[in-house]
Amino acid sequence: MTILQDALARIQPLDPLLLKQAGERLDRKTKPIGSLGRLEEFARRFAAITGSLAPDTGKKVIYTFAADHGIVDEGVSAFPRDVTPQMVFNFLRGGAGINVLARHGGVEVRVVDMGVDYDFGSVQGLIDRKIARGTRNFAKGAAMTREEAEAALEVGVSLANLCKEECVAMVGTGEMGIGNTTSASAVIATVSGMPLERVTSRGTGISDAILANKMRVIRQGLEINRPDPFDPVDVLAKVGGLEIAGIAGLVVGCAANRIPVVVDGFISTAGAIIAVGMSPHVREYLFAAHESVEIGHRCMLDMLGAEPILDLKMRLGEGTGAALAMGIIEAGVKILKEMATFQEAGVAERNT
Amino acid sequence: MTILQDALARIQPLDPLLLKQAGERLDRKTKPIGSLGRLEEFARRFAAITGSLAPDTGKKVIYTFAADHGIVDEGVSAFPRDVTPQMVFNFLRGGAGINVLARHGGVEVRVVDMGVDYDFGSVQGLIDRKIARGTRNFAKGAAMTREEAEAALEVGVSLANLCKEECVAMVGTGEMGIGNTTSASAVIATVSGMPLERVTSRGTGISDAILANKMRVIRQGLEINRPDPFDPVDVLAKVGGLEIAGIAGLVVGCAANRIPVVVDGFISTAGAIIAVGMSPHVREYLFAAHESVEIGHRCMLDMLGAEPILDLKMRLGEGTGAALAMGIIEAGVKILKEMATFQEAGVAERNT
Repeated sequence: MTILQDALARIQPLDPLLLKQAGERLDRKTKPIGSLGRLEEFARRFAAITGSLAPDTGKKVIYTFAADHGIVDEGVSAFPRDVTPQMVFNFLRGGAGINVLARHGGVEVRVVDMGVDYDFGSVQGLIDRKIARGTRNFAKGAAMTREEAEAALEVGVSLANLCKEECVAMVGTGEMGIGNTTSASAVIATVSGMPLERVTSRGTGISDAILANKMRVIRQGLEINRPDPFDPVDVLAKVGGLEIAGIAGLVVGCAANRIPVVVDGFISTAGAIIAVGMSPHVREYLFAAHESVEIGHRCMLDMLGAEPILDLKMRLGEGTGAALAMGIIEAGVKILKEMATFQEAGVAERNT
Repeated sequence: MTILQDALARIQPLDPLLLKQAGERLDRKTKPIGSLGRLEEFARRFAAITGSLAPDTGKKVIYTFAADHGIVDEGVSAFPRDVTPQMVFNFLRGGAGINVLARHGGVEVRVVDMGVDYDFGSVQGLIDRKIARGTRNFAKGAAMTREEAEAALEVGVSLANLCKEECVAMVGTGEMGIGNTTSASAVIATVSGMPLERVTSRGTGISDAILANKMRVIRQGLEINRPDPFDPVDVLAKVGGLEIAGIAGLVVGCAANRIPVVVDGFISTAGAIIAVGMSPHVREYLFAAHESVEIGHRCMLDMLGAEPILDLKMRLGEGTGAALAMGIIEAGVKILKEMATFQEAGVAERNT
């Protein structure tokens, strides 16, 4: 049994009794019943996921997976391919958006090289799990072999297993990879069956002409590869990306280890869709951080039955939405843990 | 000149040059232009309000104003009147929702007795600014005299002036007062001209019968008092509340002192509407924390031209939404201050 198969076999539905007990505890707090809205929903689910009515939220980690994409050869991005390794160095020096927002929220950022087309040698702080120097151009054939896709999934699972050992309380997903909205749109078009125009947009900010080209390239890639929408690993291998596979594996692994996992924006949600495709109960363990402005994100969230926590018109990726949403989820958990009950506070309950 | 008149005279429109300079600085950061969405909007405005391109966000304070309401005699609330002082004690002991969320966000909570119908004597931590032991029943006459309303406004202004002396970086509003959604609905119906049904709902969770009674009572109060929609102090005095007046004064005072002010939910926004009625430029200094589930809140936000930061289906008040939103605004400011530029990070800019 591989570690991926092992993880999939361990995933259980949430215990409804824990959801109920957490709800009853919230109802005794000094507030009108339900008046903290979604914070209470987050607290209930966090309790049921972790199996504790007073869950720890101390140690929070975001994994930012980096990888390159062969599809960039088709001219689908506004930024050159070199930006992927350059941004990895920016992450390691603490200067990127994700570093700022993670520091703000007390979250550790871990940067994983899944497949950047650059030889980093031995760089302090970088987690080297390189599967290949980027995917191949999926407009001309499969982006990866099935074996490469499985290896990348297992990287994610193994990181989640490590988090369990380290008592990480909450995990977030993030990514960096020039060209990866093209790959994510191909994944979501396949899995959802939605028309390409409904799930493809401007990524880092491309022009109308480049957008038309991006659409043409994806269409060509889907025709050549014919990914099987009912086989998530096939979709991942044929039109996905190494960072998307890492995210999918991390999400599966978190569900297996009962660690709440906060899924960032467009690319991360494509990874989550793959994970849920492998085991439907995965969705009970994930929180959708925010609604990205990338079109197609809402469609994925609807497929997951996930209501995003934030809507701040963001579209940066890296895990930036997850970093902010983790703070809101943690706030909900603290309500469950720290707020006084009517009895403790000596406050009268409602008349009616 | 009173301190209220002085504050109103000091309010200036925001400097468009500062907005532009902050925007230019954000555009040099290592991210696609505009990709941090509303975080960038918050950063620009925070910079323009404070007059700094690297604004401090260290010291954050929420004022939770407490007061009782004579209108409670008409049976408009699900909770007994005693809950107002009981919750004040809960705030002072740190057990309420606002305490939990403020601790989470590194925000200090200051509790102000504006008019609770209880003799607290000398209680550690309570700021005593009691104007009266609650308002009078506005279904039978004016809730306050004009002098009382002005005195309550000046309490808020003086607290903002104090914040300026203490170098408080950001202020939030909050409140507690059994019956205060009834007062807030009366204020907003007057100022907006909207039908009462569009701005009145269930507060702490009243039944259909109590809601019908609440509507009847407000209608009666508006008919008896005839508040002048173009005279904010008249509205405040006739159908408002002492905590709503405190909030309105605090918002005016923050604008006068160039302190960003984060307005919580339904009751707080009624206070902000009064403040903006006194000086339209006030709106440039305020951030709408969240969209409450109380109907009528969206209508007020539209009047203010304010897009709420969060939508978490909350309806607790106390400043709970402000506590969460302050963390998001601070995150935006840190993007402006801490993120590396393309040049600093050695990252290539876009091709096109």
